[in-house]
Amino acid sequence: METIKNRRSIRKYTRQEIAPELLNELLETAARASTMGNLQLYSVVITRDPGMKEKLAPAHFNQPMVKGAPVVLTFCADFNRTTRWCECRKAKPGYNNFLSFMNAASDVLLLTQNFCNLAEEKGLGICYLGTTIYNAGEIIETLNLPQLVVPIATITVGYPDESPAQTDRLPLEAFIHTETYHDYIPEDIDRHYCPKEALPENKHFVEINQKETLAQIFTDIRYTKEANEAMSSALLQVLKRQGFM
Amino acid sequence: METIKNRRSIRKYTRQEIAPELLNELLETAARASTMGNLQLYSVVITRDPGMKEKLAPAHFNQPMVKGAPVVLTFCADFNRTTRWCECRKAKPGYNNFLSFMNAASDVLLLTQNFCNLAEEKGLGICYLGTTIYNAGEIIETLNLPQLVVPIATITVGYPDESPAQTDRLPLEAFIHTETYHDYIPEDIDRHYCPKEALPENKHFVEINQKETLAQIFTDIRYTKEANEAMSSALLQVLKRQGFM
Repeated sequence: METIKNRRSIRKYTRQEIAPELLNELLETAARASTMGNLQLYSVVITRDPGMKEKLAPAHFNQPMVKGAPVVLTFCADFNRTTRWCECRKAKPGYNNFLSFMNAASDVLLLTQNFCNLAEEKGLGICYLGTTIYNAGEIIETLNLPQLVVPIATITVGYPDESPAQTDRLPLEAFIHTETYHDYIPEDIDRHYCPKEALPENKHFVEINQKETLAQIFTDIRYTKEANEAMSSALLQVLKRQGFM
Repeated sequence: METIKNRRSIRKYTRQEIAPELLNELLETAARASTMGNLQLYSVVITRDPGMKEKLAPAHFNQPMVKGAPVVLTFCADFNRTTRWCECRKAKPGYNNFLSFMNAASDVLLLTQNFCNLAEEKGLGICYLGTTIYNAGEIIETLNLPQLVVPIATITVGYPDESPAQTDRLPLEAFIHTETYHDYIPEDIDRHYCPKEALPENKHFVEINQKETLAQIFTDIRYTKEANEAMSSALLQVLKRQGFM
């Protein structure tokens, strides 16, 4: 509980390597997460080689964590292994569809978070790279992922070489609903978001970007409609190419 | 580490209620999970009312945990709240697309697993209901979920009233790959799956279902091609109806 309460993403790591035995223990234990029909619809590609990190970096918009971390883990939704098992066992697999993709994506994200909790408990620092699904096609090429395998999450991991301030979160009441969903009226939005908007770092961010509101930072700069739409098409293409649609 | 190592899904609960303060603390702490741009693209609907559990049960194929648990949590991918925030702040949101759905689904699954870890650490038992995305449309109706909100995971939670045996997992080497993905040849499949196939409960399962192999239990009974395809169409329809495609 305390580890999770105090956690922060770590983007700078010392040069200390992660012992393979420790990494294996963390991954093996993480696999205790719930999984559909106990099929474990995932694979994890472990990157330690500097050359491979170099190749992966552009897909993650060259965020420095990729080359700076001793270990980069690419967590993949994987129905390939299960499909091969079926083929070897006179069973006719039917997992080349969208539902199966979502089942595998769910499995691997539960595994991913389990891994992160375990790693942090052991004193490691992690950063979750959301860029994985933006440029899934490039990652597939680099890691040689076959049909029915799609990268979903990338975790950079290492011993922390920074201790950043903890970021804010919305108040609990902003995201829980009792019995049914109660949609947000403007007064709710004000109550939930004003504390975040009032933070000095956010005010500064708005100012240096010459925007009127914090929300505009997201809509106009960080996650624009145009970029989202282009990456949606790309991701749907990837799902087709990998055999999930 | 030990809690996760020893965990098992719990499907039977005592009548003891979960104190609202405890539930709130668990959800609030779970929200320390990584989240895209710190937007927290999720909502959680808390069901305690027996009438609401009754209404939710059919969507989960009447699995007894829904009515038997003191608390049922529906974890939803939510871009509605962020969109409302943008609308209240002169920002033009562009999150009605597939990428945004996947971003929100990722956020909420990390939150879900974090919650499960925390709940189990406090002595609660949980069961993950994968049925949520199979019948998302019904759940949307029951919980009154607006556009840009889609249920992704359901967790039943309560104090354990059973102590089931721990289920098996594949050996670690079955799901990790070094530097690049190495596809599975039949010898790999044998090595990874024979221990699972040799378990007495699995042999029994094959026998009573008059199948030849364990894999056929999955392809012919539990997760058939026909059902997967029908549910894929339904889920894609739901994404359209909720505004994500």
